[in-house]
Amino acid sequence: MGEKSVAKVILPEPTLRRLPWYLAYVRLQQAHGVEYVSSTQIAKEINVDASQIAKDLSFLNIRGKTRIGYEVESLVAELADFLGFGVEHKAFMIGVGSLGSALIQDQGLLQYGLNIVAGFDIDPTVIGRSIRGVPVYSMDELGVKQKELDTEIGVLAVPVEFAQDATDTMIACGLQAIWNFTPFRIKASSDIVIQNTSIYAHLAVMYNRLDERHRLLK
Amino acid sequence: MGEKSVAKVILPEPTLRRLPWYLAYVRLQQAHGVEYVSSTQIAKEINVDASQIAKDLSFLNIRGKTRIGYEVESLVAELADFLGFGVEHKAFMIGVGSLGSALIQDQGLLQYGLNIVAGFDIDPTVIGRSIRGVPVYSMDELGVKQKELDTEIGVLAVPVEFAQDATDTMIACGLQAIWNFTPFRIKASSDIVIQNTSIYAHLAVMYNRLDERHRLLK
Repeated sequence: MGEKSVAKVILPEPTLRRLPWYLAYVRLQQAHGVEYVSSTQIAKEINVDASQIAKDLSFLNIRGKTRIGYEVESLVAELADFLGFGVEHKAFMIGVGSLGSALIQDQGLLQYGLNIVAGFDIDPTVIGRSIRGVPVYSMDELGVKQKELDTEIGVLAVPVEFAQDATDTMIACGLQAIWNFTPFRIKASSDIVIQNTSIYAHLAVMYNRLDERHRLLK
Repeated sequence: MGEKSVAKVILPEPTLRRLPWYLAYVRLQQAHGVEYVSSTQIAKEINVDASQIAKDLSFLNIRGKTRIGYEVESLVAELADFLGFGVEHKAFMIGVGSLGSALIQDQGLLQYGLNIVAGFDIDPTVIGRSIRGVPVYSMDELGVKQKELDTEIGVLAVPVEFAQDATDTMIACGLQAIWNFTPFRIKASSDIVIQNTSIYAHLAVMYNRLDERHRLLK
């Protein structure tokens, strides 16, 4: 698989975000001993058009066989390989408050290839401690630790008012990708990879839709 | 503010997801003693077009004054009020494994109006324990506890293979909104509110973009 060109394809973000859904579903099928799945079956199960699924998978050069569909085992392998979940990516947690320490404790991240190897904070009561074996350092040590551990990814979970400062420090210290969990829209030069995961923004959508439902039921 | 009709507006999801960014930014300005901000200023800071911001805010009947902009204090109040972050929404955590217990420990959710009042699991080693004061019950007790506590929201963080079963149970027990943290695309009738927050899917995007960066630098 390493020799294929698929790993070099730059996919549209919506496709990239759907691929893990396909992987989760076909892994389930694999666990049940299913050998082949069609895009129509996947479509029915996960609420995405069959044609969209076929198109997404064709980006990875994965094509189903007529009337048989996709071979489950190789589909799982190719998706997992492409998504990089099987490869260790070292990361720093920037901000070890409530959300930051919760994320360090989530073993799920490791299953998806993210290994948080150290935390950083400015709070002296937290610095020097360790969470599930992950040491917490002062932000002043970020540059030294980045060189020592050769880490590329920073997970940002600081209070909003420190988000941009922390971002600037992370970039100055050599981090190349920032996974931003704050609701603040951080700015960085275009060569820095930024993923925004403002989990709280999803709450706003949920509350609004619940309000709508209540009105409809009145 | 309660008499205004804005709370009844059903906004497009992209708008709803941007509003918390505006709120985070104008709260910062408020903390700095700033009295007015223009959409152009907000735009520059958070990378959204000024016209989009003006349009988003006009959905809420918030309009800036010519050449002065938006009054920061009332903008903060109206956004916070509309988003519902100041109102307590009770929720159950379904699945108290690694991610589930991490989310229970994240005090940030409470700041955004989500109060996780109980956890549920099928693992006998977890049932009966409590996490930060939040009791963990057996899934068998979900219906009884839903009636007792009048909870509408279920936060789903079970292993993929149990995601659909747990969803069906949640709905049968009277929950009306599901915040799905699993990478599985759960199915429910259209009157159930579903928000998917597959944080691991964001990792796929980040890894892919980092790969791209590595190739460009070679």
